[in-house]
Amino acid sequence: MKQLGVGLIGTGYMGKCHALAWNAVKTVFGDVERPRLVHLAEANAELAAARGAEFGFEKATADWRALIADPEVDVVSVTTPNQFHAEMAIAALQAGKHVWCEKPMAPSYVDAERMLEAARASGKVAVLGYNYIQNPVMRHIKVLVGEGAIGKVNHIRVEMDEDFMADPEGFFYWKSALAGGYGALDDFAVHPLSLLWFLFGHVEAVVTDMVKPYPDRPLQQGGRKAVENHDGANVLMRLAGGISGVLMVNRAAWGRKGRIALQIFGSKGSITYDQERMNEFDLYQAEGRGTEQGYRKILAAPAHAPYDRFIPAPGHGLGFNDLKIIECRELLRAIAGEPSSTVSFADGLRIEKSVHAMAKAFHERGWVTVDD
Amino acid sequence: MKQLGVGLIGTGYMGKCHALAWNAVKTVFGDVERPRLVHLAEANAELAAARGAEFGFEKATADWRALIADPEVDVVSVTTPNQFHAEMAIAALQAGKHVWCEKPMAPSYVDAERMLEAARASGKVAVLGYNYIQNPVMRHIKVLVGEGAIGKVNHIRVEMDEDFMADPEGFFYWKSALAGGYGALDDFAVHPLSLLWFLFGHVEAVVTDMVKPYPDRPLQQGGRKAVENHDGANVLMRLAGGISGVLMVNRAAWGRKGRIALQIFGSKGSITYDQERMNEFDLYQAEGRGTEQGYRKILAAPAHAPYDRFIPAPGHGLGFNDLKIIECRELLRAIAGEPSSTVSFADGLRIEKSVHAMAKAFHERGWVTVDD
Amino acid sequence: MKQLGVGLIGTGYMGKCHALAWNAVKTVFGDVERPRLVHLAEANAELAAARGAEFGFEKATADWRALIADPEVDVVSVTTPNQFHAEMAIAALQAGKHVWCEKPMAPSYVDAERMLEAARASGKVAVLGYNYIQNPVMRHIKVLVGEGAIGKVNHIRVEMDEDFMADPEGFFYWKSALAGGYGALDDFAVHPLSLLWFLFGHVEAVVTDMVKPYPDRPLQQGGRKAVENHDGANVLMRLAGGISGVLMVNRAAWGRKGRIALQIFGSKGSITYDQERMNEFDLYQAEGRGTEQGYRKILAAPAHAPYDRFIPAPGHGLGFNDLKIIECRELLRAIAGEPSSTVSFADGLRIEKSVHAMAKAFHERGWVTVDD
Amino acid sequence: MKQLGVGLIGTGYMGKCHALAWNAVKTVFGDVERPRLVHLAEANAELAAARGAEFGFEKATADWRALIADPEVDVVSVTTPNQFHAEMAIAALQAGKHVWCEKPMAPSYVDAERMLEAARASGKVAVLGYNYIQNPVMRHIKVLVGEGAIGKVNHIRVEMDEDFMADPEGFFYWKSALAGGYGALDDFAVHPLSLLWFLFGHVEAVVTDMVKPYPDRPLQQGGRKAVENHDGANVLMRLAGGISGVLMVNRAAWGRKGRIALQIFGSKGSITYDQERMNEFDLYQAEGRGTEQGYRKILAAPAHAPYDRFIPAPGHGLGFNDLKIIECRELLRAIAGEPSSTVSFADGLRIEKSVHAMAKAFHERGWVTVDD
Repeated sequence: MKQLGVGLIGTGYMGKCHALAWNAVKTVFGDVERPRLVHLAEANAELAAARGAEFGFEKATADWRALIADPEVDVVSVTTPNQFHAEMAIAALQAGKHVWCEKPMAPSYVDAERMLEAARASGKVAVLGYNYIQNPVMRHIKVLVGEGAIGKVNHIRVEMDEDFMADPEGFFYWKSALAGGYGALDDFAVHPLSLLWFLFGHVEAVVTDMVKPYPDRPLQQGGRKAVENHDGANVLMRLAGGISGVLMVNRAAWGRKGRIALQIFGSKGSITYDQERMNEFDLYQAEGRGTEQGYRKILAAPAHAPYDRFIPAPGHGLGFNDLKIIECRELLRAIAGEPSSTVSFADGLRIEKSVHAMAKAFHERGWVTVDD
Repeated sequence: MKQLGVGLIGTGYMGKCHALAWNAVKTVFGDVERPRLVHLAEANAELAAARGAEFGFEKATADWRALIADPEVDVVSVTTPNQFHAEMAIAALQAGKHVWCEKPMAPSYVDAERMLEAARASGKVAVLGYNYIQNPVMRHIKVLVGEGAIGKVNHIRVEMDEDFMADPEGFFYWKSALAGGYGALDDFAVHPLSLLWFLFGHVEAVVTDMVKPYPDRPLQQGGRKAVENHDGANVLMRLAGGISGVLMVNRAAWGRKGRIALQIFGSKGSITYDQERMNEFDLYQAEGRGTEQGYRKILAAPAHAPYDRFIPAPGHGLGFNDLKIIECRELLRAIAGEPSSTVSFADGLRIEKSVHAMAKAFHERGWVTVDD
Repeated sequence: MKQLGVGLIGTGYMGKCHALAWNAVKTVFGDVERPRLVHLAEANAELAAARGAEFGFEKATADWRALIADPEVDVVSVTTPNQFHAEMAIAALQAGKHVWCEKPMAPSYVDAERMLEAARASGKVAVLGYNYIQNPVMRHIKVLVGEGAIGKVNHIRVEMDEDFMADPEGFFYWKSALAGGYGALDDFAVHPLSLLWFLFGHVEAVVTDMVKPYPDRPLQQGGRKAVENHDGANVLMRLAGGISGVLMVNRAAWGRKGRIALQIFGSKGSITYDQERMNEFDLYQAEGRGTEQGYRKILAAPAHAPYDRFIPAPGHGLGFNDLKIIECRELLRAIAGEPSSTVSFADGLRIEKSVHAMAKAFHERGWVTVDD
Repeated sequence: MKQLGVGLIGTGYMGKCHALAWNAVKTVFGDVERPRLVHLAEANAELAAARGAEFGFEKATADWRALIADPEVDVVSVTTPNQFHAEMAIAALQAGKHVWCEKPMAPSYVDAERMLEAARASGKVAVLGYNYIQNPVMRHIKVLVGEGAIGKVNHIRVEMDEDFMADPEGFFYWKSALAGGYGALDDFAVHPLSLLWFLFGHVEAVVTDMVKPYPDRPLQQGGRKAVENHDGANVLMRLAGGISGVLMVNRAAWGRKGRIALQIFGSKGSITYDQERMNEFDLYQAEGRGTEQGYRKILAAPAHAPYDRFIPAPGHGLGFNDLKIIECRELLRAIAGEPSSTVSFADGLRIEKSVHAMAKAFHERGWVTVDD
């Protein structure tokens, strides 16, 4: 069988992450084909050549369209800034390539819809890079929820917080401009929403408040400029099946570095998880003698597939980048027509629709239904 | 100086807690007068006599009005079920007694207003039993916030969760009936709101969702009965000074026993606290070298007054009941005309007004302003 | 029945703690007699009178022998500095009083032996103030160990660390002098040893190393003085039943405030506990599906007797001083001839014998057997 | 410049780990040459071919001597069971190859000495796979200790515990046989000792106790067999510079999965770390106002080099396997003659000498000095 030819557009952090995954996926999993790293595109020829050598690609180009036109490329990783996703992903799909595109799909909902249309028209595999759902711990939480280990879920809370916008004297840059989107909602909400979708299904109705902790920020050239969007957002939600939820996101939350804290309450127990300690979760089951009931801290272990493909001993820990390797293998399975767990463009669009509804609910100061 | 004569109405958990505080306050603090435990009232004479002996009161009665009429009684602890608070507190105030009444003031807002009027008319000290604010750790958090240790606060989150209603097969009882109030809002919200008021001031606007995890519950006599109120509530809030907040309360949250989790975010740092570990809090300050920034876990210590009155060494820990002793001393200071930190009937009424506004916001499905 | 008359000698922290317990024990437990607080002794008449008023004692004296001679006194709390324990406890016992003496018994083993002899000769109740064993959490750990919840115990580790001697520029005072004892061994080891004795029985053989982190300390009057004992000690131990153990104590351990960390390993599970979070413990049981095994964090609850006598709800937390109230009730039960859980002078002497053996092992640089 | 040719002997977990590192090192670090994966050896030709394809090696063989003889191979990863290390590493060194050998060097001290002699004779780079020291968090702890952030270190404790031998009914296998070594000492102690060496230098004197929790184990064929070595060991130590230490290792510690818990106490503060949460550590510094002193929980971040080469954002977390990539880069730097941080055969031999001294101390029941 012919090796799958890989093209990579973009070599920022996510580009590097994809490259690491393409390099490692066969060694880790064994049960997939070793992909051939064919073509890498960057903004200029020099950088492309340098990154191509670093990441182990055969060819490098400053013209991403050349990469897409390359007949040796079968699948394209799109890891460029968000505003380029639509154009590149659509071109790749139209050229008959599979696409692995970083989230979110596109700043504009219309562009995201066009991406979905292109995917449907192409018949190719088109998946989004929602890697948090690939964590063996998260997968096992899904197993537990599905088995009824905590009964019927009735309430969830999820927080995503970091502090890269927490300094009020940090310079104004595009993230604070209206063109940069709603703020934390764009930046963050899709991540916890991908987890909620993975575990429970889609959001159906929302009401939102947003937080603008600092009215203005200094400009590098001097003076100050009004902040145009919101570094925090809080949302009351109803999910499929009548589950009530609260979503809180904040990129100005001093002390939080990579927090995605999930609390799931059911009729027989509860589960909590925090991405800052991604190799463990806590499970409470209302079983047995009351004197010994409590949250069990469960460390990631080989029995939580596919942790075992990385490490044969419990408690040793996967890293954030390892999740991308798992995602890459799921993509390869999808391309091979095997069952896989990925976020399709259709699912991703629905997640982004929720985000837009949340923004609308803020501006309308009331509940908004997310149409399906 | 004449000893202050104490009357105690009610001997459930809170009654016992008051009794322990009255017994201990002088030994702990030294700087107050030792109160004289004069009169105790319970529902029947036998129980009153038994509890009077246990709690160390001189007289016992089944007629709470006799206690209030007792000229040797100067201050009355009201610790009966909520529906009796108004009648008893008002009678005591009208008889010229100081009143220490357990929260909430009354199930009906009108009754709570009457209590405030009676307090104003009497000129006596009338305080509510919001003991969480008396925790030396919480007091020190207030000091830190006031000093600007975390800059200007812009966002807070608070969760109060227990699991005594989490079992879907627990029998229907008054807590699930409409007459029992809104549900978790009545039961819980006043506690975290007392902390928010203590630290930041009052809630100004709210929007609410409520959670009814179980539509019905079994009856002891057989059959099932529809649950009439909500075991959970989630509220988006705006507080004084433009602080945005999220309040989440749930009495059907498996695994949570006495959780009151507070997260406070400011422009220079953040603070977190959880009542289940009431002798510690976490402080993040965006200071110093980045490589060593992190949440500092600070254990309660003598330097956090008045911890030192209980224990001269750090890290040994106060208990929940100790907070009532601190509250008792604040009451004694208020009676003595000294500066004190208590929740007056006026402040308590404003807290309860917030709760009613939250319920209204749920029914109206939109934002509601809390009038001052 | 005549009320039991209480005498209290000493009003430092432990004296206050005893006073609080004597004041509260009846209110908390109900099932004991309310003691009568008769007589208090302090070093001078003025302080005695002040403390007598604060602590609620009827009489106050500067002559502890007058207190012991008081026929209205039935039981004497001895809470003075360690060097006075023997003289006072023996005198009280010889006067026919029950004795509640703070630990350790005496700096010298010979004096401690004399105390035991006096207790035996008197036929009175003589107990030591080892309150850590009274924690409902610790009692429940004993229940679990006894039930075999973690199988046959084979290995334990215990650490007791504080940091009041951690500052190398702290002035030299009696704690660093040879007359002050071995150092951390005297100060600390008896506490964890009381827990080990409570749970497993006595120490049989030891080998020891000691730590002197700072060779000298400044004197208040200027200059420096050589430190004469050791702020840390580490001991390998064999306990009854072949259990291997490690004991580590350190009073110069920066960051530790009231740490007594216990790890217990058995053939079916393990238990961990830390006194800095005295209202919880962790239990691991090798049961059920491997994918959900983990340490369960169990919060103190009413089902862990006698927590319920203080608070009817789980997760609210007892304080350090509450343990003394429980101890006081055990003492009252012992005096009443009922089954009780206390550390007798005989058990206390055996604990102190272990400590002396540890010191010997350090000086002899080898294993030492603790004779019974 | 010619690419470095890699040979890999052994494809168990550590072999896979080496393969992943060789695949990823250039993509992660950029500043090294991309190695060429030339030759892989396994026990039989079929497995060799399969693993060769999986791990991306050009050639595969069942004859490890052929691999060593391959002129295209410049560096050999030795990841076979411990008893083969000496023969293979010595042969590779004698063939003029650099060697990256998994720890420990060899079951017998004499063989380990022969390995060191071969390394010295060859002039080639010969390093051992002690990857825990490569953790960016551990490296930063070393920086802090070196800077005096916690003053002069005077006491350390380290525990390494897992539970793969905790089940008393687990079958007898070679790990319980005398030929399998001392037990936990062989299995575990070298890991924490590598950390101590990395941070503080070598162990100078020891006294030891060992733990045999289960006297016998079932045989698969029926019946039981006496356990011949010890699943736990506890050691009192003196390290370079007069630091006192306690080492505790146990492979029968139910609940522990990958625990390597380190406590470091100095004259100005302390540091704690646990490998089960390898992306964080706690730092206490006795600085500033007493009311806010506490352990700071510091999450791994880009500022802790070389975390930044993996992830540009803090709090996202490296995995255990990532440490091997860092180690691989250090090896490449050593081969290139650049400063690097690795454990040489000389350092590794000294670590193993400590272990043998510990075993001797147990048998002699007294202190043993580790000769240099």
